[in-house]
Amino acid sequence: VTLLVAVHASSENWTPARWRTRLAERLPGRRIALWPDDAVDPSSVRYVAAWKPPPGLLATFPNLEVVFNLGAGVDALLQDPRLPDVPIVRVATDDLTNRMSEYVLMHTLMIHRQQRYLDDCQRRGFWTPRDQWAANALRVGVMGLGVIGADAARKLALVGFDVAGWSRSPKSIEGIACFAGDAGLAPFLARTDVLVALLPLTPDTRGVLDRRLFADLARDGRLGGPWLINAGRGGLHVEEDVLAALDDGTLLGAVLDVFATEPLPPEHPFWGHPKVTVTPHNAADSDAEAISAYVAAQIVRHEAGGALANLVDRRHGY
Amino acid sequence: VTLLVAVHASSENWTPARWRTRLAERLPGRRIALWPDDAVDPSSVRYVAAWKPPPGLLATFPNLEVVFNLGAGVDALLQDPRLPDVPIVRVATDDLTNRMSEYVLMHTLMIHRQQRYLDDCQRRGFWTPRDQWAANALRVGVMGLGVIGADAARKLALVGFDVAGWSRSPKSIEGIACFAGDAGLAPFLARTDVLVALLPLTPDTRGVLDRRLFADLARDGRLGGPWLINAGRGGLHVEEDVLAALDDGTLLGAVLDVFATEPLPPEHPFWGHPKVTVTPHNAADSDAEAISAYVAAQIVRHEAGGALANLVDRRHGY
Repeated sequence: VTLLVAVHASSENWTPARWRTRLAERLPGRRIALWPDDAVDPSSVRYVAAWKPPPGLLATFPNLEVVFNLGAGVDALLQDPRLPDVPIVRVATDDLTNRMSEYVLMHTLMIHRQQRYLDDCQRRGFWTPRDQWAANALRVGVMGLGVIGADAARKLALVGFDVAGWSRSPKSIEGIACFAGDAGLAPFLARTDVLVALLPLTPDTRGVLDRRLFADLARDGRLGGPWLINAGRGGLHVEEDVLAALDDGTLLGAVLDVFATEPLPPEHPFWGHPKVTVTPHNAADSDAEAISAYVAAQIVRHEAGGALANLVDRRHGY
Repeated sequence: VTLLVAVHASSENWTPARWRTRLAERLPGRRIALWPDDAVDPSSVRYVAAWKPPPGLLATFPNLEVVFNLGAGVDALLQDPRLPDVPIVRVATDDLTNRMSEYVLMHTLMIHRQQRYLDDCQRRGFWTPRDQWAANALRVGVMGLGVIGADAARKLALVGFDVAGWSRSPKSIEGIACFAGDAGLAPFLARTDVLVALLPLTPDTRGVLDRRLFADLARDGRLGGPWLINAGRGGLHVEEDVLAALDDGTLLGAVLDVFATEPLPPEHPFWGHPKVTVTPHNAADSDAEAISAYVAAQIVRHEAGGALANLVDRRHGY
């Protein structure tokens, strides 16, 4: 078996059988098997392409060479206590990156252009524009400068926003003021009107978006207070701290695509909160076609002696 | 008198006195006068900076050299039957261009990302994402490829949309499929899911956005029908045709920043129409600072023998 596919059907495009078809088209002549549907000899499995496989499953394949995590976030996978010591590749397709940047750009623009206020004016039939400044008056701060964060930062800057970025280790991106590490966090937050969280979820980043951090954001900007956009992982923000910060004005608003519990429970206060925009974890839907092409290309390159791309560093958790 | 300023106070930043201060700072040693407040010898006026001056006013200055129209659209100015035969410069600042592109990008993204549907889901507390495709599946068509339209088209393409443009005379923009003239209109419309109108208002373009044109837009796109964004001039679209096209499904939705009558009258059906987004002609607010710097720089260059930029071609009406 060349490749074992272990996924759950989260949509029609994500049914296991469709993954097999797509991957078989791109890896002609190989055996592609589905877990748990197909009977396979565990020792024959060289690669596994998986999304949130049950803990322990990967350890049952003694000749496993590479695990492909079928999404950008590997936080679920890394919680497997018996995760075998083989390379883990995560999805980093242009398709996924571009979609995330669409989301970040749209919501930053909606905040900047006061679209919720204008929607309210329309509902009331009021022609009452407020002062509107240009994008260069708004300081956007992107937390997390991996492939996705760097692309979002660049596109925000092209539209004219005043963009900075923060990352754990130092980065350099043309046109973006880059801050790094513990020492860089306070100055980064102090110049940020709209905070965009695109961090991986790791033991270090869990709960990083808390009251203390919100209190360090800029309060001298054009919006009258800071905003949070979390399109990374729900575990990054502390829900009760977001609510408290919105209620006491530490945050002016929040746009959340990810939550501690998904789907967001019907009784959750975020749903009806006037300062919160809830989206159903669809900032960057995974395109199964693009991911299949990506996995197949990496297998072909690996077998030709080439290096695997976008390997996960387990020490850092992403 | 070097420069006579003839504007109406449409906001605090647009009070005539503030224009005088700003322009005087940038043209030290010159006399800047306000119409109608200041007494001036009409024969002393070399330049007029005006926004919608009363018809006939400009003809009273026999030594007028240049008129600066304090906005991008010169349709109001050109209706003056006694407009003197001097060069007319229109505002084309980067600030104005960037703001218009912000508006076009945000509303195109909101259509593309089905944000109105997601808002409705939030109001109802439903976690029910629909299929979401990437931006390259959406064909955006920009009508009008002047400085503003070309910038919007480029930025839409950078975000990933499949962008084409149409203009009266042939243009060439890298990465944009450019159509031109009467012959190019039908093929341009046939591949357009979201039509962005950024045309000047001229006798040729008045009422160009009508039923017949809407019927020629693409009907095979991902959205299930075409959308209209008009951020140009209200006279471009025929209001009853927009309403009829929305009601019979020829158009799926419309985003309108400009109207035949502004402010849009309280009883107008656009206000409460479920398929219409109304914004109060604020797609690109004029920044008085940026415009003052632009006018002053053109006067200095002109007097040093340099060419005036962004001259209006009266034959074409823009």
